Amino acid sequence: MKGFTQLDVSRLFSKHKSRIEEALAAYHRRDFYAAYPEMPNDPAYPADGEKTARERFNALIGKRFDDLYQKGDTQVVSAEVSPYTLEELKIGYTAFKDPKDYVEAAEHGARMLWINSTPESRVGVLAEALERIKDAFFDIAVATQHTTGQPYMMAFQASGPHAADRALEALALSYQEQTRFPNKVRWEKPMGKTTAVIEKHFRAMPRGVALAIACSTFPVWNSLPGIFASLAAGNGVIVKPHPGAILPLAICVAKIQQVLKQEGYEAEVCILAPDLPDAPIAKILCERKEVKIIDFTGGNEFGAYIESLPGKVTFTEKAGANSIVIDSTTDLKLMAQNIAFSLCLYSGQMCTAPQNIFISERGVLVGDRLASYDEVVQALVDAVKALSTHPKAGPAICGAIQSPQTLERAKNAGNFGGKLLLEAAPYTHPEFPNARTCTPAIVELSSMRSDLFYRECFGPVAFVVKTDSFEHSMALAKIAVEKTGALSASVYCTNDDRNELTMDSFAEVHTVVAFNLLGQVYMNQNAAFSDFHATGGNAAANASITDVPFVTRRFTIVEAKVAV
Amino acid sequence: MKGFTQLDVSRLFSKHKSRIEEALAAYHRRDFYAAYPEMPNDPAYPADGEKTARERFNALIGKRFDDLYQKGDTQVVSAEVSPYTLEELKIGYTAFKDPKDYVEAAEHGARMLWINSTPESRVGVLAEALERIKDAFFDIAVATQHTTGQPYMMAFQASGPHAADRALEALALSYQEQTRFPNKVRWEKPMGKTTAVIEKHFRAMPRGVALAIACSTFPVWNSLPGIFASLAAGNGVIVKPHPGAILPLAICVAKIQQVLKQEGYEAEVCILAPDLPDAPIAKILCERKEVKIIDFTGGNEFGAYIESLPGKVTFTEKAGANSIVIDSTTDLKLMAQNIAFSLCLYSGQMCTAPQNIFISERGVLVGDRLASYDEVVQALVDAVKALSTHPKAGPAICGAIQSPQTLERAKNAGNFGGKLLLEAAPYTHPEFPNARTCTPAIVELSSMRSDLFYRECFGPVAFVVKTDSFEHSMALAKIAVEKTGALSASVYCTNDDRNELTMDSFAEVHTVVAFNLLGQVYMNQNAAFSDFHATGGNAAANASITDVPFVTRRFTIVEAKVAV
Repeated sequence: MKGFTQLDVSRLFSKHKSRIEEALAAYHRRDFYAAYPEMPNDPAYPADGEKTARERFNALIGKRFDDLYQKGDTQVVSAEVSPYTLEELKIGYTAFKDPKDYVEAAEHGARMLWINSTPESRVGVLAEALERIKDAFFDIAVATQHTTGQPYMMAFQASGPHAADRALEALALSYQEQTRFPNKVRWEKPMGKTTAVIEKHFRAMPRGVALAIACSTFPVWNSLPGIFASLAAGNGVIVKPHPGAILPLAICVAKIQQVLKQEGYEAEVCILAPDLPDAPIAKILCERKEVKIIDFTGGNEFGAYIESLPGKVTFTEKAGANSIVIDSTTDLKLMAQNIAFSLCLYSGQMCTAPQNIFISERGVLVGDRLASYDEVVQALVDAVKALSTHPKAGPAICGAIQSPQTLERAKNAGNFGGKLLLEAAPYTHPEFPNARTCTPAIVELSSMRSDLFYRECFGPVAFVVKTDSFEHSMALAKIAVEKTGALSASVYCTNDDRNELTMDSFAEVHTVVAFNLLGQVYMNQNAAFSDFHATGGNAAANASITDVPFVTRRFTIVEAKVAV
Repeated sequence: MKGFTQLDVSRLFSKHKSRIEEALAAYHRRDFYAAYPEMPNDPAYPADGEKTARERFNALIGKRFDDLYQKGDTQVVSAEVSPYTLEELKIGYTAFKDPKDYVEAAEHGARMLWINSTPESRVGVLAEALERIKDAFFDIAVATQHTTGQPYMMAFQASGPHAADRALEALALSYQEQTRFPNKVRWEKPMGKTTAVIEKHFRAMPRGVALAIACSTFPVWNSLPGIFASLAAGNGVIVKPHPGAILPLAICVAKIQQVLKQEGYEAEVCILAPDLPDAPIAKILCERKEVKIIDFTGGNEFGAYIESLPGKVTFTEKAGANSIVIDSTTDLKLMAQNIAFSLCLYSGQMCTAPQNIFISERGVLVGDRLASYDEVVQALVDAVKALSTHPKAGPAICGAIQSPQTLERAKNAGNFGGKLLLEAAPYTHPEFPNARTCTPAIVELSSMRSDLFYRECFGPVAFVVKTDSFEHSMALAKIAVEKTGALSASVYCTNDDRNELTMDSFAEVHTVVAFNLLGQVYMNQNAAFSDFHATGGNAAANASITDVPFVTRRFTIVEAKVAV
């Protein structure tokens, strides 16, 4: 018997084999590696990339997005609004009236050939799709900028090379895990005088239809790894973008569909399911029995709902309250600047941005000198003010605010119940005078106000919490993780013994922690091939990008035994 | 900075290293391998093993089980009843009045040193514990026989060498996965003229307290792999046996505790939590927030409850309806004998035992000859009758019935709504005249009675379903998996093209399938290092013993970044 049907129907794997192998080696080494250069001015990218992408974006406003290869019986005219122009994009996306049609299309598409292709075939197609996505990095960047409000450079890096690196990482790992066991083996068991012989066949089998529900602030970076991991395993994938940030994912899906079609697969193996704020379809999709896998980035309530659905494999990233604990440092100014950058970057709208800064009332040792609590707080406030109001750096780092709700929250920071140290304020963006902008607010809270700091306050708001001691700070930071979850943590401390205890403390609550960041590396950043984004071990996320279960839970190993 | 605290506190790893490496290699080859010989008369085991074990067992009845190293404030006098003697065992086990005390003891025990030991330390201790369990194989066999009703030979093999092999498999894989990433790496990112340097530390971190809830029919085989996988990752483990089958697991826990204590760990890292049928504690344990991992073997209702608990990583094996599809064979007699063995083995109380036998009314091609449907059914009935009533083989294969409910169900098979082809009947056990015994009932059902055959009917009852064709049989078998789940399937068919389609069909519903078993290999059996038990992809189980997520989901990878 030949065994399971696994057709080798694409020659693309051999084209990308060395890249997959390199990625796998880097993933296991965990030192620095990038398959896609992160600077837009890299020679790998066209010099006029941004310019032509902006022209294409402007021409698309109010028009139909024509690059998808999927069928539909209606059109969603999107409610996307640029946080930079405050204009509605009104882009038309092909859609189905009935959400179940997406499920049927993805399932049917996968059944046509995708499921029964070898992992090599699928991985080759998807590695090629990443190259096509690379060709669209500038389009994706502009689309990300004008839907999420990310500053342009971040939009390029996060939705472009960094997201592609993370997708490649998931792809390479999935390839390794799907081919971990032999396709066929002869099992010979000695049974006294005779030998029992069984020919055994093994294959990785996709679970069914996967659903990727994206968020409005990091639609591509947070979703692409799951999309690629699900596809690599043979699942059909429905991509359900946030109604406020459809275009960046529409471009990615179009590129994936292009390669699928070219290689003889059904394009709808990966299908975009756009919707509108007043007619959401996520729950309907989640509850279809064919949907076996759900990736989700978003709020706690919907995340908890998804995790509670019976019989689904879920990968969620929800809210968290990330902490900085300051004990001592070698350089107050560099520390303040590093923290200020983390707070200002995309106006605090990163899931890894700091929220709570715990400082002991006893002050902070700076080299040999004891800086008072007030001096340290002032240094932080000054650094945030300097950076966020800098005419050039400010706009380039802060970007714009994705939603009016986030802006309202930040504006209201003075009424939270603490002392307002720095008011949230709009700044004038040099290129986009209508931009919805906001520099960070800093609020000082009593250590008794855990009702405030044990809750995610999404957006450009930071809480400075005055504590009794370093130990008190650490206790509060750990409880914040236990109650709310966290995706990052940062500690400034020059005492190695203390740092070793601290490292173990954050490990106990399954949180990535950074020590003494003073230069150009920030607690918000997680690099593909080296950093695990979230651990899946605290309330902020039940999965990690990219640990081993992130790929292996998307397929099962199925076996057939043949007596010979 | 040194990095995370990971102490190398046991020298046992080097003692067992070659065995771990051998196991890992075998796991990935998937050909025949066994670390523990399966025959009780193997020279590896003492010649008087069974005799002395029976003496110890008889001496224990009505007494206190003294081998545990755990504290308690009360004693559970067990409600275990031997299915062979129908006598109550009334064994006293150390227990806590308040179930939360088990959680505290396991959590405290793990925190003392276990969590912060290297994976090598833990794996060494656990590999040694398997050797101590090996020394108790005969005790565990007798305990299994007199609680589950398994025939002695099966009790020895399944609870002894086979369970130990599966535990070793999980242990070896967990070791590999926990050490998959470097402990420490230097990350150097080129940033134009400068280089950002971060020293990164990684460690596998246990999730918390694990709870293993065992069943009454296969307490050791089904639970030992999860217990070892959880322990290997550094979790404290509470073992909650079925109130009807405590002793086999009590012996295993005692052996694990013995080695833990000897190596300077808290024995309660692994703690037994016995209970009584009228005062169950499983739910209370499940709902403790410290309990992060739950392994469960048992019924659908409780399994669904466990899967619905928020924030837990669960590994469940529930009910299934396993199918045989008969199309054609080379040897009617051998086929009938093989099926009869599968039905009789432990009187159908294996989770992998067949329940539904689908046969086309068009008959079965036997070599060149077409045997009628009736002839094939008669051959099956005759084979079951011959085997189950054979004075020597019958008792050795059928064993006894674990619970009175199972016996009642089988006795009642004539009233299910089909035609009773073979009545369930007690047989007289030569050694145990009071044994609760029952030979299999065979009931013929119309293909319209899916209300009966799409439901698990646990115990010695098989349904023969007359279908229109092979395709009809396959359709019904596949729907049975989709509705009820299945842990095994078997097909008799001499047409290779047809078999290839069939193989893919069962893969689609994530079910292990065996073809043309005529000799001494049976569909019920899954061998460590070679077969995956369940796929985790259909309703019968959400996990697989032992796929990669079975071990990797029990820990997270935690990272710390240190600026240098």
